[in-house]
Formats: sequence, structure tokens, C-alpha cells
Amino acid sequence: MPTQNRQVRLGARPVGLPTPQDWQHTTEDVPEPGDGQFLVRTEYVSLDPAMRGWMNDARSYIRPVRIGEIMRAGALGRVIASNHDGFAVGDHVTGTFGVQEYAVSDGLGVIRADPALAPLPTYLGVLGLTGLTAYFGLLDVGKPREGDTVVVSGAAGAVGSVVGQIAKHVGARVIGIAGGPEKCGLLTEEFGFDAAIDYRSDDVRAALREHAPDGVDVYFDNVGGDILDHVLARLRLGARVVLCGAISQYNATERPSGPANYLSLLVNRASMTGMLVFDYEERYPEGVSQLAEWLAAGVVTAREHVVDGTIDEFPEVLLKLFAGENTGKLLLRIADR
Amino acid sequence: MPTQNRQVRLGARPVGLPTPQDWQHTTEDVPEPGDGQFLVRTEYVSLDPAMRGWMNDARSYIRPVRIGEIMRAGALGRVIASNHDGFAVGDHVTGTFGVQEYAVSDGLGVIRADPALAPLPTYLGVLGLTGLTAYFGLLDVGKPREGDTVVVSGAAGAVGSVVGQIAKHVGARVIGIAGGPEKCGLLTEEFGFDAAIDYRSDDVRAALREHAPDGVDVYFDNVGGDILDHVLARLRLGARVVLCGAISQYNATERPSGPANYLSLLVNRASMTGMLVFDYEERYPEGVSQLAEWLAAGVVTAREHVVDGTIDEFPEVLLKLFAGENTGKLLLRIADR
Repeated sequence: MPTQNRQVRLGARPVGLPTPQDWQHTTEDVPEPGDGQFLVRTEYVSLDPAMRGWMNDARSYIRPVRIGEIMRAGALGRVIASNHDGFAVGDHVTGTFGVQEYAVSDGLGVIRADPALAPLPTYLGVLGLTGLTAYFGLLDVGKPREGDTVVVSGAAGAVGSVVGQIAKHVGARVIGIAGGPEKCGLLTEEFGFDAAIDYRSDDVRAALREHAPDGVDVYFDNVGGDILDHVLARLRLGARVVLCGAISQYNATERPSGPANYLSLLVNRASMTGMLVFDYEERYPEGVSQLAEWLAAGVVTAREHVVDGTIDEFPEVLLKLFAGENTGKLLLRIADR
Repeated sequence: MPTQNRQVRLGARPVGLPTPQDWQHTTEDVPEPGDGQFLVRTEYVSLDPAMRGWMNDARSYIRPVRIGEIMRAGALGRVIASNHDGFAVGDHVTGTFGVQEYAVSDGLGVIRADPALAPLPTYLGVLGLTGLTAYFGLLDVGKPREGDTVVVSGAAGAVGSVVGQIAKHVGARVIGIAGGPEKCGLLTEEFGFDAAIDYRSDDVRAALREHAPDGVDVYFDNVGGDILDHVLARLRLGARVVLCGAISQYNATERPSGPANYLSLLVNRASMTGMLVFDYEERYPEGVSQLAEWLAAGVVTAREHVVDGTIDEFPEVLLKLFAGENTGKLLLRIADR
């Protein structure tokens, strides 16, 4: 039985991209699970763009991580000790266990992951909050119809790649925006998008005119910034813009300018609506069951970007997200010591 | 019977505020109504912020007014000759008759105005597209509920003043934003708003914190610009922003910056939706009938800002809108010659 628990804590509020100075690395004794609790050893840590927001001291949908607190993170692990009737040693579970090697849980918000049904990393990706975000955001807020033109930004990312595949399944024409030829190739070859726009080398506005000549019915936005503005200029009558994220803005040190073309919403009687997956908690079972069915049927392909390392490497792996280095769901896999 | 018809035509595409050089004043013979047509003498011309957009050569919800074309305008007039079975000499009618003293019509889109039921100017205001914009925009898009906090900008204007009164009737707490102490006084004293914010002298952000301490459920935006941004920062969970106009931007000569606080829509799972009254054409009878009932019951007070003049004075009266000089519906009344 291990005795030491390495942890990564928020050390300071970052300005711009988080630096090594913004983190604290600590070691504590592995906690003992109390009555009704169990102990989890972390196997995979989820890395998500939203984490950057949690590090700011700002009113948001969830309280900020406090200075000195273990960094909040979703993770997948294995139960290695249990005083809880519902969870047995050997069970795989996902939950908000934080950036640490061991966590004690009372089971609240913890979901079992069955490696016989799907590979374990999938439970943090397509079958986790990532897939659910894509599922509810696209279908409930974006409401794509057969024949619609759907544009997705951050399209090679964890959420975007699932959004595009669901949109295809619904019968939409799907255009993905991503950075670099490799990701753009994956969009059309692996994820089945109809077209890909490389925002690093293409003129996004001209490419949208080419690939969406009749305009855009649904835009699923993960990035914000100029790309949002370009798509707004191409909206079709009654279009729906789903605001899911704005990764281009999360590390901005100056107040970003807003989408100058927002009046396209007025001209086109379109809507722009923010969505957070937590609002759909009651419907998670529906979403997971549908996503699992699609995964099994090959309608949706799961892709994870797994980095092997120690828990202490979390800070540098997180930076891959903001550098756009990941394709699919970014995970840190913690080797057993 | 008059023989000359004075007209105001678009002479050039304005840059910024329209200047006298952007207009052409012409005289033609008064036209003869053909078979199935009637002749209207203009008594009131409606002046609306949207007119500025019609003068631009830009893709929008309606085609631009062409250079040399009679300026598009809603108007109210009296039938002075008729070869149309449905309209008799003496009838009062509203329609898109343009900025001219006489117009021939085939009755398409023309609505009768009964001076026995309501004062004539009302038919271009509360009982016209103005009132219908407020009615459908607030109730269908904003969806205020009892106890909600509703904020309206351009609150002393034609649409805003009606929006605020309907919101009060629904049981919301209503805060109006307008320019100057006189308008702000009217909001609370004549239109029954709960609070007024003078954007010219108040710190809008601080005033919103004071008057909407729990945040804003519905924001009805007629002005855009900084005020939109301030309200976005105060949205409540699930808030609805109705984009009805952006008068602060219509004469901008540089590309305006967008609402920097748009990510408040994401944090608060809020929506921002454009609305145009023309989309509700099938429901106009419902709207007019409800507005007429409210008008008769004193739920809604009609207020028009009538300027007496000749048709040639249209260009300078239009500028009153952009200078914020009108309270309620701005109309140009054309005296009989």
C-alpha cells in the first residue's frame, strides 16, 4: 500500500498562460477512507480548457479554485480501498478527484466505468462530460436539422470532434475549423467532416464563403475571437450560435474585444446562447446511453490524446491545450509507482 | 385637387450621420390612381432608427433604398381618390407610402386607421409597427415572467416606452435607460418604470448594480454599444437579451467593437436573439387587438413626438432620432397646402 500522495495545487492566479510559478507541488500521506468512503488511485487526469477559467478569481458558473487548494480536475481511477457499500476494490470510477495521485470519495458525483464496455479513457471523453457537452450543446441548443450547414470551431478537439460527428449523423453538412494540416486532415478523413478550414493558413472568411455558400445554420463555438466574428458574418436566417467556450480568450491579458459582427444576429433573427453541460445533469443517463450506442455502432469515433507522465507534469500538459497541440480528448496517464 | 407632389429621395449613401447632400428633393405631378388603385395624401410620416440602415448598400433583412429612389417610410394618410373597392375617399390608412406628399397604392400591406377608436398618430405608434415590435419582441423573445428584472434601453423612445409598460403589466420590475433628466423623469412618472438610469450623467454599471442587485433577466436592447456591454455584465442565469436595434452604431464611420462581455452569455447560459417585427406579420391582428385593449384600459400610454412641417423637412427631423431628441414615437405631420 502506498503511503505518499503527490498533489498539484494552485499557487497563484495566473496572468495570461499559467507558468510553473502558478503551481505548488505538495506531498501528503495517502488519506484513509472513513466510514462510507473509498480511496481511489488516479489513473487518468482530464485536461480541459475550462480549467483556465477556474483559476481566475471571477464570478462564474462554479467557484474559483482557491490559492493553495488542490487543482480541480475530472479523473478516472481505480478503487484501492473501500468502506462504501456501493464501490468495491478494483472498480474503475470517474469523478472530480483533483490533480493528485490518491483521493478519498464518498461517491457523490462518482460514475462507474466498465472497461469491458469501452476503453477506460473513453469515460473521460466521448462517454464523459466532453461527449455530453457535445451531445446536449449541439442537439438541444444548436438544434441542427437535416440539410443544415453546421460549422464547428476547435473541431479537432475533444468536444468539437464529437459535435461534428453527431451533426453528420443528423444529416447536416459539417465544416470544421482547426489549426494545421494534420488536424484538418483528420477532420475529413477520420471524423467524416465535409470540409475543413485551417485557421492558421486559410483566409477563414473566404473559406467560409466557399464551403458554406448559402450561409451557416448552426455554429458551435469553442474558440471565440476572430473566428466567431467571421462566422457571425455568414449566418443564415434563424441561425443558432452555441457558445460552448472561447479558448482563444482564456489567457488574454487585455480585455478582449467582442464580436463586432454581433448585429448579424439582428439582421438574421439569429440567436447566440451559452451552454454548460452541468445544467443537463438529470439527462446524463440519456446522453451516455445514446453516445455509447453511437460509439458501438461506429457513428462516433473516440479519439484521446494520452500523455504518459507523473502527476507533477500536469501543469505542462495543460499548456498543450492552449497551444492547440491535442487532437481529441487530452489526458494525462499516471503510471503506477 | 392638387397637381404637384413633393418627394424626398436618397441622393447618396451617407457616411456617418446623413447630411443635406445625401438627399434629393423632387417635384412630380400627382399620380393618377389606375384601376384597383387609390391615391393617398400623406398626413404623418413615421421616422424610425431602422431608416438609417436602409440607406446603406449592405445585405440586410430588406433591400437598400436605391440612389434616386423615394425614401422608404411608413406613413399615415387619407384617401383622396379611389378606383379600389376596398378603400373609399375619406378613409385613413397606413402603409409604406414613402417620403412624399402623395402616393398611389393598390392596397397591399395597407391598414385602415379609424380615428374614432384611437387618435390617428397612434396608428403609426403603439398600434403600428412600433407597438408590435415591442409586443412581439418582449413577449415572444424576451419572455418576461412575474418578478423578473427587465432592463430596456432607448426606454423613452417609441419602442422602448411600450416595452417597459408591457413588462410592468406582466409583473416585472422594469428599469429604463435613457438620455437626460427629462426623459428619465418621464420613464418613472408617465410610463410607470420602477427606475430610470440616465446614461449621459449616471455611471450605468454602478446604477445597474444598484437598481438590479440580483441581476437582469431580460434586456431589451435598442441601442447597442457600451450600454449593451454593461448590461451583459449583469445578466442573471438563463437571461434573455432581445436585440431590437443598435441606434448608437447606425452612424458609426468606423467598424464598431463588439460587446466584449459576450461571454457572460456562456457563464449565465443566457441567450441573445435578434428580432424583426416583419417575421410576425401573421400575428399582427393579435398584437394590434391586445395593444388596443391595453391602450383603452390605460395599461399602455401612447406618446408621440409630432413635428409639424413640410415633406422637405424630413431629413432634418430624422436627425432628431440620432440626437436622441424625441420622446415616444417621432412623426412629421404634413400640413395640407
